[in-house]
Amino acid sequence: MLEQALTHRSIGNNNNERLEYLGDAILGFVIADIIYQQFPTASEGELTRLRATLVKGEKLAEISREIQLSNQIKLGTGELKSGGWRRDSILANTLEALIGAVYLDSGIERCREFILNLYKTHLDNVNPADIKKDAKTQLQEYLQSRTQSVPEYKVISETGSSHEPEFTVSCKIDLFDEAVIATGKSKRKAEQAVAKQVIIMLESRDE
Amino acid sequence: MLEQALTHRSIGNNNNERLEYLGDAILGFVIADIIYQQFPTASEGELTRLRATLVKGEKLAEISREIQLSNQIKLGTGELKSGGWRRDSILANTLEALIGAVYLDSGIERCREFILNLYKTHLDNVNPADIKKDAKTQLQEYLQSRTQSVPEYKVISETGSSHEPEFTVSCKIDLFDEAVIATGKSKRKAEQAVAKQVIIMLESRDE
Repeated sequence: MLEQALTHRSIGNNNNERLEYLGDAILGFVIADIIYQQFPTASEGELTRLRATLVKGEKLAEISREIQLSNQIKLGTGELKSGGWRRDSILANTLEALIGAVYLDSGIERCREFILNLYKTHLDNVNPADIKKDAKTQLQEYLQSRTQSVPEYKVISETGSSHEPEFTVSCKIDLFDEAVIATGKSKRKAEQAVAKQVIIMLESRDE
Repeated sequence: MLEQALTHRSIGNNNNERLEYLGDAILGFVIADIIYQQFPTASEGELTRLRATLVKGEKLAEISREIQLSNQIKLGTGELKSGGWRRDSILANTLEALIGAVYLDSGIERCREFILNLYKTHLDNVNPADIKKDAKTQLQEYLQSRTQSVPEYKVISETGSSHEPEFTVSCKIDLFDEAVIATGKSKRKAEQAVAKQVIIMLESRDE
């Protein structure tokens, strides 16, 4: 099972994709449970955001590097040549597959200990109140607390190719006469960028 | 804990939101694990899609109705007047909170039995191969299997208010001279709608 967990799909059929699917679900549950117990007064929203930062690919790749997982991953020739063992996505997926394998081999309690070990330093220095809400949520809450209407976002244009699109989005709030404009690689990113800009403008106005 | 699981946030602070967060993670794991075992040859993609259909709000609301959960939910006056106990989202969230409470009270094994009981009939008649890929994926795979380039989607316009937006999206493939156009309440929905239309056009052409 360990062998399978370390085998990338570029090798062939007997790869780690099913284990990765299972490990992802286990990790989501175990981390949700750990921080639920660790922060008894945190709100659902805080816990949800904290969990997201702990199980995202970037964090999993970081942990994979700490345990030097990359040396152990079995990759096909193409992935080997292109340095696949350095890629965040492959590192993160392999770690999830490893978690799935530990669970199938030893059950949920041992798997929980395994995850706790992996996350030790990452859970020590964490605080749900520190995890920032995304910019759109911040802006909406700022405006609602001042009984302003919600901001209006519009996609102004979508340029670039379908592989590398660029979205231009406007954000209009009642406090400003003109809409603010920003761009991003997706509609979501452009909206976050423009919301951030509006927040900065509101803050400099408040000072 | 049962009382808390049944208490909607419209009642006040001691509500089921944290339990709902926990129950959601437990349910995701338990269902992922059950179908992993039940379908040993299903692909990661098939399992992911099957799990999504089993844990989505609509399905949870359906199960909540089967166990007549709505009679037990404690709602604030406003939610009571507006018939909140009939709403899918409230039914689904309360069921998740109930799962969280069973887990905290009795541990993961008993919680797993509880979930298996809830899902009995829903798991009997399920087949991962039946779960359709979404239209965009279908279209992309159809074109790739014919060594065609991937379709190009563009947002043509976004009208309506920010609460009720309407997106118009075009989809251009090399096989057709003209782009096909469709609308939807979100970019995603409009893209799915236009992809479906293109598939229908391709199928009628193949016949």
